[in-house]
Amino acid sequence: MSLLRVSASGALFAPCCRSLCGGHWSAVAAAAPSARWRACTPVPVPHRSFSAAAGPGSSDSGDGGAGRLRGGRWLRAGAALLASGALLGSGLRRAHLARREGPGEEEALLDRLAGFMAPPVSPLSVLLAAPRDMKTRMEVLILDTQAQVCRALQEADGGAEFIVHSWQREEGGGGISCVLQDGNVFEKAGVNVSVVHGHLSEESIQQMKSRGKSLKTKDGKLPFCAMGVSSVIHPKNPHVPTIHFNYRYFEIEDADGNKQWWFGGGTDLTPTYLNEEDAIHFHKTLKEACDEHGPELYPKFKKWCDEYFVIRHRGERRGLGGIFFDDLDSPSKEEVFQFVQSCTKAIVPCYIPIVNKHRNDSFTPEEKLWQQLRRGRYVEFNLVYDRGTKFGLATPGSRIESILMSLPLTARWEYMHTPPKDSKEAEILEVLRHPKDWVH
Amino acid sequence: MSLLRVSASGALFAPCCRSLCGGHWSAVAAAAPSARWRACTPVPVPHRSFSAAAGPGSSDSGDGGAGRLRGGRWLRAGAALLASGALLGSGLRRAHLARREGPGEEEALLDRLAGFMAPPVSPLSVLLAAPRDMKTRMEVLILDTQAQVCRALQEADGGAEFIVHSWQREEGGGGISCVLQDGNVFEKAGVNVSVVHGHLSEESIQQMKSRGKSLKTKDGKLPFCAMGVSSVIHPKNPHVPTIHFNYRYFEIEDADGNKQWWFGGGTDLTPTYLNEEDAIHFHKTLKEACDEHGPELYPKFKKWCDEYFVIRHRGERRGLGGIFFDDLDSPSKEEVFQFVQSCTKAIVPCYIPIVNKHRNDSFTPEEKLWQQLRRGRYVEFNLVYDRGTKFGLATPGSRIESILMSLPLTARWEYMHTPPKDSKEAEILEVLRHPKDWVH
Repeated sequence: MSLLRVSASGALFAPCCRSLCGGHWSAVAAAAPSARWRACTPVPVPHRSFSAAAGPGSSDSGDGGAGRLRGGRWLRAGAALLASGALLGSGLRRAHLARREGPGEEEALLDRLAGFMAPPVSPLSVLLAAPRDMKTRMEVLILDTQAQVCRALQEADGGAEFIVHSWQREEGGGGISCVLQDGNVFEKAGVNVSVVHGHLSEESIQQMKSRGKSLKTKDGKLPFCAMGVSSVIHPKNPHVPTIHFNYRYFEIEDADGNKQWWFGGGTDLTPTYLNEEDAIHFHKTLKEACDEHGPELYPKFKKWCDEYFVIRHRGERRGLGGIFFDDLDSPSKEEVFQFVQSCTKAIVPCYIPIVNKHRNDSFTPEEKLWQQLRRGRYVEFNLVYDRGTKFGLATPGSRIESILMSLPLTARWEYMHTPPKDSKEAEILEVLRHPKDWVH
Repeated sequence: MSLLRVSASGALFAPCCRSLCGGHWSAVAAAAPSARWRACTPVPVPHRSFSAAAGPGSSDSGDGGAGRLRGGRWLRAGAALLASGALLGSGLRRAHLARREGPGEEEALLDRLAGFMAPPVSPLSVLLAAPRDMKTRMEVLILDTQAQVCRALQEADGGAEFIVHSWQREEGGGGISCVLQDGNVFEKAGVNVSVVHGHLSEESIQQMKSRGKSLKTKDGKLPFCAMGVSSVIHPKNPHVPTIHFNYRYFEIEDADGNKQWWFGGGTDLTPTYLNEEDAIHFHKTLKEACDEHGPELYPKFKKWCDEYFVIRHRGERRGLGGIFFDDLDSPSKEEVFQFVQSCTKAIVPCYIPIVNKHRNDSFTPEEKLWQQLRRGRYVEFNLVYDRGTKFGLATPGSRIESILMSLPLTARWEYMHTPPKDSKEAEILEVLRHPKDWVH
């Protein structure tokens, strides 16, 4: 695939001969930016200063580590240790700093981390040791995205707060699950980050092979590292649509020591009723994010989305689509990352205005019932077809509560429910059966 | 497998050199019945006489063919044609009768058919032409079971009636779906019969191969005939358990013209709360049905049930089990059929007494909520693991509304719901995680 063009400027540090768990660095020169491309600016993060408190930096793990936290608060528990060098081993931090990146870069990374919902999944020492490795950058991006979205949702809800669970996976890695349940606006909103590594299950290997990946296993094993941010937001009001997004990064090392990497992701909208203005706003915002990286991207990924989110046995799509892509591994890791970053930046502006517009709309019991029936279809897609859910359920040691937080709080299945012709219910069904172009 | 012994007495007519759609007959002698076996009596069906009315015998098909029908009423529309010989071609019926089976046998079959919820799926002419073919006998058995169960449920509900849909499958065959929704006792009760034939999808062939079947395809095709009765009953009251049963028969013809046949089935109970007396009654009734055919059957099929209905990602079973078996193709077609018949006879007595015992139990909102969460788990099992659901969703032209009528009317997913220790909710979870023996 050749989907992205050069967007980075200046010299890049790219991982080279680095195993999935660590390694060394070599500097490489990036190609010059194309004239019609502009560099993406990083997602803005509030600058926070540390305050001293006791407690480990990344040990708020396991299901016991739950709490109603706001981004940044966790650092009160962990920053003191970090500042004292304990997390890198006493005395090592400053030496490392001088050797590798210079103090400014490390401080900047620490500042970004300070805004997150919980301590990063990877130990701070690992992140600080390799701030320019794609795994570090992607982990920071997904944690950042989680924090931005959670704050925006919490503000829109105006009542409930996110419950934050940091958890560890026995086989390697862990995650941070943020769930807001039974709020003023949102019935169930989950924003999950996971950073896992280990060996792929046979089932997962088969799934990947079935979509054309050449994967040579050794004794049936395949080391992998996968990370992503994933979210489904189910509002209460049937006039506020459900949104889903997921951005992920994979690295796999096959039996010959060859490494493969790719990005995947997407953002899509599932309304209960059709509102054309909302559909246009949503798709337009995504298109603008894509267009920064090439005019061919939005049409291609919009079509991919329409083709992916199909409930085949119903002959209809889950929602109004958006963008979707997978196995994106060209033209370069840096360029795909920049594109993914733009996509994550578009989440809040494509959705929150729609939430605020409809959150106080009145609705009838019949409209609520139709929402519940559509929620049933959402469950059908996720459990029967969704690749991410299947990957999660098939991966040993996965955190099921995090994977299935995508399911709505309530859903309904009525036998032979058929909306009357020319009804609002029939109107959205028509679009789900025959997807439209919302922006040109 | 050698699970059943001889139970039939006298001469049998067995299909021989008969294609999946028709053929000729040859008489074979059955082995003498074992002393410790007794023949199963057929499921009793009310005797009804025909009354003349216009309309085709088995053309109440397609989704337009719905109606609130009681068993037998459909014959008022179809019997006149049959009696006049129209369904077999004018004048052919009596000639056929004299040549093949004798008038008594055919009349007996017609009497049984009269008690069903709708006309059989196969044309009456096909059934009457080969009343002793296993496909005919199984179709009659599953229609009979549907009628018996629907009547018993309707009586227990005391309010709502079953909606009956006869439907045809473009690729071959069809079915009869009976659904009672929002009754006094039952939230959703579906009893479905399907008789389908055609060619298996590649996905279905792979599924069958994965469980050890040797299937040689020709140009990737495999002719099959499958029929079964399948039911899930979800009551309103959380103290009345959900029941599921399914009994099915398969015939497959491979590229070399070799035929394979097998039966599968089972009945299992999914309560919201544990009631040991109910669990014992349920399992004891099933055990008695199995014991008629060999003492080894119940323990074997009880274990199989516990192993099959596992929600793997949750580490728990769907319910309290019951019996489950598949690929049953020995010691003989007749003997397995007799066993399956005994199982179908046990459905009403194993369940209806439990319904009547608890239908008026009082319950709290918290108990209703727990029921809804367990319904969510039911959905997870059915959509992620259930082989029948997967086969249905993967079979082109399947009737989705019939396959997914197993899903409850309403379900719920709460993030991180954990019942308190020593609660009634924790009590049933314990049994779902560690299944018990209920009868010895």
